[in-house]
This record gives sequence, C-alpha cells and structure tokens, in this order.
Amino acid sequence: MAAFSYTVTLPILPIRCSSNTNNHDPNKQNLNKLKISGVPTRSVKIDTLTTTAGVAATSVASVSENGYISKEQVRQNIPTQKQFVDSHRQGLIVEEGYRQTVVIRSYEVGPDKTATLESILNLLQETALNHVWMSGLLSNGFGATHGMMKNNLIWVVSRMQVQIDHYPIWGEIVEIDTWVGASGKNGMRRDWLIRSQATGHVFARATSTWVMMNEKTRRLSKMPEEVRAEISPWFKEKRAIQEFVPEKIAKLDSKARYAISNLKPKRTDMDMNNHVNNVKYVKWMMESIPDQFLESHQLSGIILEYRKECGSSDVVQSLCEPDEDGILNSSMGQHSEISILNGLSFASEIMEGNGLLGSLNNAPARFTHLLQAKGETQDEEIVRGKTTWKKRLPTKPFSA
Amino acid sequence: MAAFSYTVTLPILPIRCSSNTNNHDPNKQNLNKLKISGVPTRSVKIDTLTTTAGVAATSVASVSENGYISKEQVRQNIPTQKQFVDSHRQGLIVEEGYRQTVVIRSYEVGPDKTATLESILNLLQETALNHVWMSGLLSNGFGATHGMMKNNLIWVVSRMQVQIDHYPIWGEIVEIDTWVGASGKNGMRRDWLIRSQATGHVFARATSTWVMMNEKTRRLSKMPEEVRAEISPWFKEKRAIQEFVPEKIAKLDSKARYAISNLKPKRTDMDMNNHVNNVKYVKWMMESIPDQFLESHQLSGIILEYRKECGSSDVVQSLCEPDEDGILNSSMGQHSEISILNGLSFASEIMEGNGLLGSLNNAPARFTHLLQAKGETQDEEIVRGKTTWKKRLPTKPFSA
Repeated sequence: MAAFSYTVTLPILPIRCSSNTNNHDPNKQNLNKLKISGVPTRSVKIDTLTTTAGVAATSVASVSENGYISKEQVRQNIPTQKQFVDSHRQGLIVEEGYRQTVVIRSYEVGPDKTATLESILNLLQETALNHVWMSGLLSNGFGATHGMMKNNLIWVVSRMQVQIDHYPIWGEIVEIDTWVGASGKNGMRRDWLIRSQATGHVFARATSTWVMMNEKTRRLSKMPEEVRAEISPWFKEKRAIQEFVPEKIAKLDSKARYAISNLKPKRTDMDMNNHVNNVKYVKWMMESIPDQFLESHQLSGIILEYRKECGSSDVVQSLCEPDEDGILNSSMGQHSEISILNGLSFASEIMEGNGLLGSLNNAPARFTHLLQAKGETQDEEIVRGKTTWKKRLPTKPFSA
Repeated sequence: MAAFSYTVTLPILPIRCSSNTNNHDPNKQNLNKLKISGVPTRSVKIDTLTTTAGVAATSVASVSENGYISKEQVRQNIPTQKQFVDSHRQGLIVEEGYRQTVVIRSYEVGPDKTATLESILNLLQETALNHVWMSGLLSNGFGATHGMMKNNLIWVVSRMQVQIDHYPIWGEIVEIDTWVGASGKNGMRRDWLIRSQATGHVFARATSTWVMMNEKTRRLSKMPEEVRAEISPWFKEKRAIQEFVPEKIAKLDSKARYAISNLKPKRTDMDMNNHVNNVKYVKWMMESIPDQFLESHQLSGIILEYRKECGSSDVVQSLCEPDEDGILNSSMGQHSEISILNGLSFASEIMEGNGLLGSLNNAPARFTHLLQAKGETQDEEIVRGKTTWKKRLPTKPFSA
C-alpha cells in the first residue's frame, strides 16, 4: 500500500530554547563538530532543545478535578495510532508527506491583512507536529524512535530557512505540505511548502536541519546505524529550497548599526516546554530594524542559525546590520543579483519611473542579525539570522 | 426552514483600539450616556473601535503582481453569500447560533499545556467574525446593516466578560457556539460558549456588549427603529453568563499596589485595522501582577470595560490592585463567598491539610486593573479590568 510507506517515523523539534540555563555544565560546551549537508558546521552549543513532539500523553492535573472527565484520551485527541486521515485537523498522509488544509484566521494577519511571519512560523511548527502525530510514534514521551531512546538521543534544530513569495491573506485557504529527508550523514531535514488551495501556486517554502544529541552528555551525536535503519526509509529526496552550499551568516559585534538591549522573555513567551519560543526570536530580530524600513518593506526570506538556548532569566541583545552586498552597494553591472535580492519591487520601481537609481537609493534589502545573551565574562550567541526584504506594494488603506 | 431563521445579520466588532489618536477631536469626548442592560452606563469615550467584519472584499495589492492570480474571490474564500455550512472552517449555523469546531494547536498553549487566555480571546474573535461571514452581509465593507449604513452607524464594544472553568488542553477538540441578543434598549450582546466536543461539558463562557456610534460625530447613538426592525429578529434570549446587575469596576489611581509604566504598542501588536488588539490589553494587565502569583494561580474570569481607544503612539501604564473583598480579608464566616472566589483550590487546600487558614493566607483571588494613557494634562483611561483567579493544581513537569 503506497500510502503506508509515506508515513514518517520521525519526531520534529519545535525550535525553542530552554529556560534552565542557570546551571551551566562545562560538559555541555564545545560539542562535537558534525558534518551536515556536506559542509562542516560550526561548534553547536545547545543544552536542551528538546522535542515536544512526544507529549501525547500529557498529564493535565485539572482535568479530573470535577470528576466528570476521567480519560485523558477523550480530551487530548492527539492520534497515538498511525493513521492516514485526521478530519479534525484536516490533515492527511499523501505521497509528498503530510498535508494539512488551513484557513488564515482574523488574528493571524497584520495591518496589511496578510498572514504575519509569526503566524506562518507557528503553522510550520503545528503541521510538523501533526505529521509526527499521524505516524503514531509518540508514546515514548519524546517522539524519538526506539533506536534513539536506546541510545539516549534526542533531536535538536540547528538551522531554519523560510522563503515567502506571497503572504496568504485573511480568510485564504492554504495547503501545507511537510516531509523529512536526510541531511548529510548524521542529520535530518524537514521541509515545508505552503500553497494556495485554489490555484496550487506555492506561496512559501521552508527547510530546517536537525541533529541528534545525547540527552545525558548534551553532546551532539553521530546517527547510530540502528537509528539510520529505522528512519532512512522515510526520507525523501525532494527539497523545498534548492541550496547546495548553505549561506554563511557573519557574526555581528558591538559595531552593528542597530542594537536593542535589555530584552527579557516574558511569561507569555514561554511555550508548553517552558521554553522561549522561536517566534519570539524573530520578533526580537525585527524590533532592531528601523520602523521606517518595516513600514515600506515585507520580509521575503529568513535564515536562522541556532547557537545556544536562551533562558527565561537571560537578558538578550538584538543586533542588526544592513548587508554590504545589499542593493545599496550593488553596482549597475549586477542587475541580476539586485533583482534576486530585491525581487519584484525592483521591476515595479522601474515601472513607476523611479528607474534603477531609485532602487539603488532605497534602504538595503538584506540584514544580518544576532541575538546574544549577556554573559558574566562575555556575551553568548543565541541565534544568528539573515533576513531578505522586498518593497511593499501600495495597499488600499482600511477606511474607518 | 428552521435553520434559516437562525442566521444572524449582525456584525461583530473585534475589540480593539485605533492607532490614530494624535488628532483628538473635542467632539469625540463626553459621549452620550446610554442605558444598556438595564443599568446606566458611564460615559464612554471611544473614537474608532470599528469593525473588521466587513472587510470581505479586502484589497491585497500583491495578489496579482505575478499575474497568476487574477480573482480575489479565489484567494479570499470569505463567504459573502448567506450559508449554513463552512466546511473549511468547520463551522455551521445551528439553532443556538453559529458553531465552530476547533482543535487547540501546539502554539496556542502555554507551559502548562493548556490554551492560553490570549488564544481563547483570539478564538472568540475568530468565531464571531465567521458567524457574521456566514450571514452573508459583508459586502458593505463594515458589516453594518442597511439601516445602520443609512444612519452612519457602526458598532463599538463597551464591555467584555469571560469565565473559564477549564482550559482546553493541547490537541483538544472544542466546539465554540456564538450568538447575539438584545442588551437594553440600544445595545447588543454577543455571547459565546466553549464546550468539550467529546463530553459536551462547558469549559468557558463569554459575553460582550456593543453599542452604536455615529461614524461622523463619534457620538454613541440610540438604535434607530429601522435598525431595530432589521436586527431584532435575530436576537436570542439565551445568555452564556447570568448577570442581572453587571459588576462595577472601581477606578484605580496612582496609589495602586502594582504599576508598570512606559508600555508602548509594538508593530506586531497591530491587527488588520492597524489597531492595538484586545489581547495586548490583557497581556499588559497580566504583566502588572507579580510573577509569583501567576505561577501558582490560573485566571478563571476577566471583565473588561472599554473607555477610550489607545493609539500606537500612546504610552500606557498598567495599574493593578488586589481586591479588598478577596480571600485575604474574608472572615471565617464567609465560607461560601470564599469558595466562590477561590473555586476548587479552596477545597483542595483543605484536603492537603493546609486548612482554612492556609487558604486565607494565600494571595488574594481577585485583582482590579486599569490601563491608562499618559495625557498632556492628565492620564486617560483606556480600559478597566477585573480578574478572578484560582490556585493551580500541581502539574506534572515536562522532564527534558
């Protein structure tokens, strides 16, 4: 049965950082270097980027306080058996992986009535988790395979990239596909495609890279052969984003043009693992970009490189620098590159009569970001980022 | 056809405030006093708490930039014709009003794996809007009836109350019912019930009060007879919350025990009307409550009284005061009252051997809140609030 072979046995890790960083263990530092996606990765220092995928048997103490709901299964409604259709979530296992139909809700859109980046990131997390649920492997509490559990291994995310060509609008129905694949010898990829249900056109693409960590030593681990045997049958070759050599993100320092300091996680930034969630990272990055730029531009791409978890007690600084190779400093001879960077806005500028120089005088189209936590002796990198932007087209204002 | 008579012709106003308060018009102040729900209301000063319900024909300029999507209707997928079933949103018109089935998503829950208050408020807004969409009356851009448009009237929210007995948990399937009713001579109520789909048990109840405002004079208005004739056939007597005399919320001043100042709306707090959204109000209120209390308590009720809009340029102060009539100052002779205030936690305290005095020594179970904007001559009230809390039952921590 073809459909069967496309259920995926892998957990997905919601990208987050732990709130427990007070007791730093020196053993947790300077983890192994691993080869992922064909290029050597930098040393990764992540303590407990643990998965929530396995929390199918969530214990909620308040459930039975009145005695009228005795069985958690009745309430939870998370599939714990392998299944192909989830009518409540409008999800199903397809040849491409897992597909879920989603309606963009009123509170998921911003002032321009299109889905916010935060909403899109949330939907990526949600569909990935639902994909794992459909696989029926969540009984162990972490979503790890039997081979992973035996070896005390968990998944941690090291990189995430999202490209958004068109933001879905309020009320729009989209289909989100997600699937997993190999990433180098020891890693896993999880990809996503967001498509218009009406036209099938791709609105957004995303890919993420995951590595295994020994839960006890907190060191990154090679993938044991028995785990490879378990999970590799579910890998797909297909890629949402073609990228042969992942772009490197430079490390910013205190000379960065924009900086916001003293950022502190709030209670509402914590997710069900009591970790600061990934969406908050992105919000912090955006806050360092000048409002004037944000008002006239729309994010078309973001890359996140995770370095270490940040804790609820961390004091975070968000640094941001317009890219040297952005449109500001591009020469006239690099039309094609400019066009890639600035996308459709470039063409529209020309049409509007501003010409090429009009575009060149615009704010730069790319930013490099760094979130870092104030350390006792030195600052510690949490996540590096790269954002790409295109000019907003004029929208009809909402007349009140 | 019975179902037909239960479609509702009224718009719902997402509760929000405008970001355009720089040009204060003296005509907008000191609006008419109206009689709502049988009790005289305080003077309400709201500029443009306008509805988003009517934005069915949203103009999104980026839609056709590639030329591959020509018709907005294809993308928007907001019902503009009256209909009884919306399969994409899993909503339908029922005798009780509008009913939508919703799955609690991974990013809608907090550290305790139950839906956050913010998520619940968002779902109330979403289902109310979907209810109006189902009515097919959104072609005018504001969701107002023909009679309202003729009289330049829009809806503004004056009060919102939510009672949460049980927070839905991650993955849980809930049914949300919403309907409208009369509120005094000139107002409208919108109520909600959130129920477990599995057991039918009510998890949460909510009610809100709306009045009409003249869009041009910005004054509250009586309901014209022709509007009453249009909308009253759709009113239901049923109430989600029985409340004969709405509780008054005292105005706090600078002597309030807790205060957070210098709160500023961020870009991501703006919704599709470029207004600060209601959820942000609630977050600001919560921020003024000590963390220690929030960690050990769960909100079981909230009342919001809207006074004036706050703008994106407003600098907001959040004041908070434990209630005098809370459990701290309750005498031993008021067991029943304590029990109401502190709910189930009271009984569990006794069972745990802490006894009644243990409960009395707990933090108070109710808070009064005030959000105010720094004015040139004096502070201006944005919203008054009252929150009720019960002790959290111990939850099984998520072991990482």
